[in-house]
This record gives sequence, structure tokens and C-alpha cells, in this order.
Amino acid sequence: MKVVITGGTGFIGQRLAQALLQRGGLTAPSGSQEPIDELLLFDVAEPPQRPAWADERVKILSGDISDPAQVAALVDRDDISVFHLASVVSGGGEKDFDLALRVNLTGGLNVFEACRARASLPRVVFASSIAVFGGAGMAPVVGDHAKQTPQTTYGATKAICELLVNDYTRKGFFDGRSARLPTVIVRPGKPNAAASSFVSGLFREPLNGETCRIPVSEDTVMPVLGYRAIVGGFIALHEADGADLDDDRAFSLPSFTVTVRDMIDALRRVAGDRKLGEIVFKPDPFIQRICDGWPKDASYERATKLGLPKDASLEAIVENYIEDYL
Amino acid sequence: MKVVITGGTGFIGQRLAQALLQRGGLTAPSGSQEPIDELLLFDVAEPPQRPAWADERVKILSGDISDPAQVAALVDRDDISVFHLASVVSGGGEKDFDLALRVNLTGGLNVFEACRARASLPRVVFASSIAVFGGAGMAPVVGDHAKQTPQTTYGATKAICELLVNDYTRKGFFDGRSARLPTVIVRPGKPNAAASSFVSGLFREPLNGETCRIPVSEDTVMPVLGYRAIVGGFIALHEADGADLDDDRAFSLPSFTVTVRDMIDALRRVAGDRKLGEIVFKPDPFIQRICDGWPKDASYERATKLGLPKDASLEAIVENYIEDYL
Repeated sequence: MKVVITGGTGFIGQRLAQALLQRGGLTAPSGSQEPIDELLLFDVAEPPQRPAWADERVKILSGDISDPAQVAALVDRDDISVFHLASVVSGGGEKDFDLALRVNLTGGLNVFEACRARASLPRVVFASSIAVFGGAGMAPVVGDHAKQTPQTTYGATKAICELLVNDYTRKGFFDGRSARLPTVIVRPGKPNAAASSFVSGLFREPLNGETCRIPVSEDTVMPVLGYRAIVGGFIALHEADGADLDDDRAFSLPSFTVTVRDMIDALRRVAGDRKLGEIVFKPDPFIQRICDGWPKDASYERATKLGLPKDASLEAIVENYIEDYL
Repeated sequence: MKVVITGGTGFIGQRLAQALLQRGGLTAPSGSQEPIDELLLFDVAEPPQRPAWADERVKILSGDISDPAQVAALVDRDDISVFHLASVVSGGGEKDFDLALRVNLTGGLNVFEACRARASLPRVVFASSIAVFGGAGMAPVVGDHAKQTPQTTYGATKAICELLVNDYTRKGFFDGRSARLPTVIVRPGKPNAAASSFVSGLFREPLNGETCRIPVSEDTVMPVLGYRAIVGGFIALHEADGADLDDDRAFSLPSFTVTVRDMIDALRRVAGDRKLGEIVFKPDPFIQRICDGWPKDASYERATKLGLPKDASLEAIVENYIEDYL
């Protein structure tokens, strides 16, 4: 079978691709486990060089997800699954509304239409976000039964795509599942335009001996999850039997609700004698305002029931990052 | 000022137009009450003849709401307000998914972009529906704080447009308000493609001495509201001070939760000695299934607080219909 990952050369896209190559196969639309013979990573730009882990099954293609014809051409087989991760991120979406709508809404619709056009019933896993929650009307603990009141265009488009995934699935156009992601840690490499980018920087820069600037107060709270559990969640959600899912196909992934202070403490505990770069608080009202609108706590009973994974601890997430990247 | 009503030649569109002509003015983007010098009714088709009530302020134009250029041309002044009522209805949307997306989603986006393009901050009133609620995950009583879990493409596109109205408003692109309508009674004229069409027929056909066929069981429950209160709600929502609204601009309108039996009883009480056409139960599983997915009860505290009107009783709604149409 073929697997398409949109946003496939991003951090999570590449981690997911590696996990799928290692796994070797997935449940195909036929219902049986099939080996993956093609893994297509589609993204806005090709990486400067082909990743070292990419074997002959991997194809990398750059293009415009807001172009229906380009997206339709990706989904060119009936024995196919799609992980739709491509997205303008939160801070980026606040700065460019039109781009957020074009990539997140039109792009989503293009992916959903491409899957609908197949004669089979492809499984589609959509990467949503807990940024679908926020604002004055937000429940103290948000989960699968909480009203979605996004306070960013990013969150609004994620909520819209959750609705579309449910409706396309209800109509029998494809077999959709949405994973609602908390803040992902620890992203390697450079900061990105996500308002949450500093959360990975908080671990990454000090471990690299670099100074880290935190744009929010140390009591800022957010739900987080390690990338290994995120990738595991995507795959487990793909593999879940549709008969075990109800008419709401969206699941808040498991998470840890922590403060910036909790994360710094965990970093220091794991680092031990390792010399860390400095952590400096440098308030940025733009980022603080976005983070203040985020959920303060998240529940995830349906994800747990479905067996979606959670890291052992915040420390374990930091240890995994050191093992994988340092 | 100019007022645009999309879906303006439909039943509610025409009632709203008449109420606006009678009222004479609205709060303009400037913040002051301005007389309406142009009232543009935009719809998919022109009515066979110009309505008798339409004075020289009224323009009627037919076109395609899914065409951005046509919609932009409607919103051609800064002193303007838009009531966005155009929509594929519930039953129609279930039978033609693509049309529902084109009219309800693309059409909505076109209206929102046209208003955003103005230098002023036009008020936009969007007609949503309690069809945004439904399914196994639905709360026993649905209201402004309940999660939206639509079970029709109609309901999904309404939920999506509520999210868009909130986000365009948050971004300062226009000043939006959404009215979440229960089933509207009593629609005159012919049945339409709405799954709820029979609810008006239940009153209308017997009062006309015609036989009425009810496609659902007599204990089928739904929240309903009379068209006078619906129109009053649209106008009151338009006139509300933005400072009194929070970041969720969508309001469930007041409603009566009644059974088919309650409505037949109210009809008989109001009819008195009037000879009624026969009421026949003729089950239609397609319609019953849609109605079974609808809310069984609705709350509307925020609407009440804002002063949105509610009819005095179910009987009063029937009396209004007799006064207006018989």
C-alpha cells in the first residue's frame, strides 16, 4: 500500500515516516495489514538533502496543498492511507490570515476530496490541535466533550477540519480520525512560527549550551506531550477499528499539564552534571496573549480507552530527546 | 445605508425585508441609526413577480453565491449591513453534498470576504441552525455552551460558519453575530427540501382544508419558534451593542420544545370551529432519522439576556399565521 504524509518533511512528519518504515505496514482500506511499498512525503518545500533514514520506499515531493489538482495527484491509488499534517502554525496564522485559510482550510478540503475520489475507503488521520479550545467560554478542563471556542485562526481552521473529517466519514467518503495534539516537545532544530515554539527551545537550547529566551511567565500552564507518544498516537489512531469509534472521530491525545517552571525543573533533573545554557525570561505580550488563551488542563479518557500512548513522565520525554538527538 | 439579505427572496428573507422597510433604519457601521435607502435581496432565482410590499428601496438580484466576484459586487458601500440567510437546507444538503459545501461553505466565505473588504466594520448577521447539534454525543439540553456535533452536512456547514463569523469578528474584519435558529413555523406556500418542512405543513395544510402527511411519529420532539420572533431576533441581534457581546458571537434563539402531538393540539385549539384538512401519519425513515438526530431540548439564556424575542405561546404562533396569511 501507499502512505501519504502531508507536511511530511516537517519534524513530526519525518518522525512519523521513520516509525512507519520501521513498522513496515498498516491496515489498508481492504481491512488487512499490507506492507508499505511507497511512502510519499508532501510538503511546501523539499529538504536541502534527502534524509539519511529515507530508504527506496520514500518519495519526497514539494508543492502547493491549496491546489486541488496537485493534491489529487498524490492520492493516486486505492490501497492508500493519508496522514494530513500540513498546516500553517498558530503564530504564523495570526500574522497571515489568508495563508492560514488557504493552507489549513482549502488544503484540508483538497486532501479530503482527493481521498473521497478513491473507490476504496482510505483511512485519513488528521492532525488537529488543542488550540481549538480557548477564550472566556473555555471549560476549566477541556476534552472530547467540550465546546470548541478557538481564539486563533489556526485553532478555528483545526476545529473546522475536525467537523469536515466527521462529516466526510459520516457520508462514507473516507474513514477519518482526528488527533487533537497538545504542545509537542522536544522539537529539534530551529524555532518555528508556532506561538509554542519556545516550549521546545526551553529544553533544546540549554542542552545545546545556548541561551534560551522564554517569552512568557514561568507560571504559564499548558498540556504537553513527547513526540514519540504523538507519533505512536497517530499510528494507533490509524490502526483503530472503525467499529470501535463513535460518530465523533476526534480524540484529544493524552498529555501532561505543566507550567514552564515544571519543565525547567525536569530539564535540570535530567541534565544532572551536564552544563546547560542560560534560561532568560524575556516577556513577549504577543506570545503571552496567545498562550493565555490556551487550555489550562486537558482530559483524554477516550484516547486512553482506545490505547493511545502517553510518555512515562516529563523526564522521560527529555531523556528520549537526548537519546535521539544529542 | 444599504442592507443586503442573501437568500432574500425566501420566506424568512422576505419577512425580514418587510420588517426592515417598516422599521426604516438600522445601526450603521458608524454606530448611529441610519435610514435604509437600499435593500438588496440576493437569491438563487428571482421571484416570478415583484412582491407587492416591495417599495422603491428594494432591489432584487439573482445570482450564484458561490461566485466571489458576484458576492463582492453586492457589498459595494461602506455604510452597509448584511443578513446572510442563503443556504442549502438540511434534507437538500443530505442529497447533494457538493451543493451544500458550495452554497453553505464557499458562499459563506464569499460573504465574509466581501464584508472584510470594506473600509468600515459592517455588521453581519448569519443564520445558523440548531442542526449544529446532534448524534450520540449530544447534551440532553443544547445551548450556547454545548459542543457542536452535527449529523448533517447542513449542520456541519452551519457550525463551520459560526466558527468563521467568530474568527473574522475577532480579527476585526467585520462585526458578526450568528443566530442559531430552531425549526421555523409556520412557513406559508409549498413544502421545501428541509427535513423539517412537514412541521409547517402540519399547520398550513389542514388550515387550507388540505390533507397533511406527517413523515414522523407523533412523539417526535423538536424546538420551534414562530417567524415573527425569528425576524425580531435577527434585528435585535443586529442592533445589539458589540460591547455587550463576548467572544462567542453565536446565540441560540429562544424556542418552544414541543412534540408533533403538542403542535396538532395547538392547531385544533386555535382552529375552533374552522374545518381542518385531515392529518395522516405516513412514516418516512429518511426524515425520521434526521429528526431523531435533532436536539430534544434547547436552552437560550444568553439570547434572553440580550432581549431576543420569543412568541407568547404555540397558539400565538398559529394565530399570527392565520392573521398574516389566511
